[in-house]
Amino acid sequence: MKVLVIGAAGMVGRKLIDRIGEEPEILGGAIEKLFLVDVVKPDAPKNLADIASCKAIDLAQAGVAEELISERPDIVIHLAAIVSGEAEADFDKGYNVNMKGSYMLLEAIRAEGQKQPYKPRFIFASSIAVFGAPFPEKIGDEFFTTPLTSYGTQKAIVELLISDYSRRNILDGIGIRLPTICIRPGKPNAAASGFFSNILREPLAGEEAILPVEDHVRHWFASPRSAVGYFTHAATLDLSKVGPRRNLMMPGISATVADEIAALERVAGPKPVSLIRRVPDADIRGIVDGWARDFSVKRALSLGFTAEKTFDEIIRVHIDDELGGKIGG
Amino acid sequence: MKVLVIGAAGMVGRKLIDRIGEEPEILGGAIEKLFLVDVVKPDAPKNLADIASCKAIDLAQAGVAEELISERPDIVIHLAAIVSGEAEADFDKGYNVNMKGSYMLLEAIRAEGQKQPYKPRFIFASSIAVFGAPFPEKIGDEFFTTPLTSYGTQKAIVELLISDYSRRNILDGIGIRLPTICIRPGKPNAAASGFFSNILREPLAGEEAILPVEDHVRHWFASPRSAVGYFTHAATLDLSKVGPRRNLMMPGISATVADEIAALERVAGPKPVSLIRRVPDADIRGIVDGWARDFSVKRALSLGFTAEKTFDEIIRVHIDDELGGKIGG
Repeated sequence: MKVLVIGAAGMVGRKLIDRIGEEPEILGGAIEKLFLVDVVKPDAPKNLADIASCKAIDLAQAGVAEELISERPDIVIHLAAIVSGEAEADFDKGYNVNMKGSYMLLEAIRAEGQKQPYKPRFIFASSIAVFGAPFPEKIGDEFFTTPLTSYGTQKAIVELLISDYSRRNILDGIGIRLPTICIRPGKPNAAASGFFSNILREPLAGEEAILPVEDHVRHWFASPRSAVGYFTHAATLDLSKVGPRRNLMMPGISATVADEIAALERVAGPKPVSLIRRVPDADIRGIVDGWARDFSVKRALSLGFTAEKTFDEIIRVHIDDELGGKIGG
Repeated sequence: MKVLVIGAAGMVGRKLIDRIGEEPEILGGAIEKLFLVDVVKPDAPKNLADIASCKAIDLAQAGVAEELISERPDIVIHLAAIVSGEAEADFDKGYNVNMKGSYMLLEAIRAEGQKQPYKPRFIFASSIAVFGAPFPEKIGDEFFTTPLTSYGTQKAIVELLISDYSRRNILDGIGIRLPTICIRPGKPNAAASGFFSNILREPLAGEEAILPVEDHVRHWFASPRSAVGYFTHAATLDLSKVGPRRNLMMPGISATVADEIAALERVAGPKPVSLIRRVPDADIRGIVDGWARDFSVKRALSLGFTAEKTFDEIIRVHIDDELGGKIGG
């Protein structure tokens, strides 16, 4: 089996590759070749070094998609994207990579299949950003996609293409709408959603963190480990069960900031909680007000996708996977 | 005011141009220049001949969109499309015209605005085909778009682009999702939906017509006159009232074949009804089973879009507009 991961140097990409390194048949069979690409050259786990081919590419460049697909990977996992803030700031870059780059990839698959039969599994990282306020309190599987960012628009367009290209037997596609990933490992970043992770990760490491919104703010979360699980499950799932509606919101937890803090106290005691400083920021509050708060994800659950059931679990995943099981400080 | 109509030789396009000919300020002001384009050279009404520029174009050709937009029309009405059956039969042609052609148009507007400020009104003919079965009995304004044809996919993609380009202040766009137009004037055609019109139009002209489905089959209709009304209303509507969700299902009537036939009898007596021959066709029945039956269109109604309230009216519109007020036979 040949596997191509586009966006392999990103947070989810790296964790997915590590997971494949731990359990090399997790995508449904032995991998003979693993193509790992991103805008920066990705790393391969040591035990996969002999089958991995790692390369820096720009998906928006003509010919790149064709070159990647010329290897005829059986599974294509497409995680690459210009993130929301950058796609908003740089209109051309967002459309060139997120929409046109993805479209070129789908077209390269179609062209390859016209040379000789070829129908790979195509797993696309979509986003909660395909939805735009106002929302019902709980968003169901049949709610419409009215994105309020160019990033969300680009994701929603690729979702439509994936359904149509699947229906036309060009590929066997699925769109995985990711919840906000929490706790994101690494340093605090400038993303508007960063604080949801910062107020847990930094205190768990004995550092202060800033909370820019009120405690009752609610959002939809899953751990990085769950995110990896969506993709490994999507690689082996019988997609005929999904039918023509190929894009699914993934399971997660609806939680308020207060829920996060209460879970932090239950898991790690009162000391980390004391490191959260409340510094209200009207801009961030305004952005977050436009985000989805809760979902009903019956279809994804019925297809066997899973996530954490409590916020305590989300925190424990971080302690296990990032902190070697120990709370710092 | 300069107005560009793309797809001006089609059924809705011709009726729209005729309507402008009847009432030259119906789009909200005096028109100094009317650009009419289509794959075949459109005709202009006699009283508009001195302001009309009529041209045959291929929207999928590089440079065509830029040339059209270089005239800086204040209103762009985009009706052009490869129809459903052809977009399904010819994958490249459908995507090239319906998706890429429309995208090139939006991009040409953006490029023109980068030279000097420019933000036209952009009115897009979208379709009931953005929806795909299974449906609720009545489709609401927030139901998701999961098209089951490439045509519907292409329309749904352009809808997303129109919302985003509007949000980004590149244009002031609106997507008009047309019901099935009934009674279509002209000859019976091979479209799967043709019978909905054929069983009225042909008997009203004293000709036999074939009904390939059962009488209880239900669908969503409006007259050609209503279709023209959607576009003239969209030209003058305050789009700030529409908000960021720019694509609207238009008002129509949910009616069964039996409702159509009963209306025909009420309006034209028993003789035309006797000209309907029932010849069941499983293929057509299968296609029609995938179509939407009924809508709740609260948003469009609240914005002042209108259509017929009874099927009798739909039939009378045809008798008035196509038959000079007289039932033939």
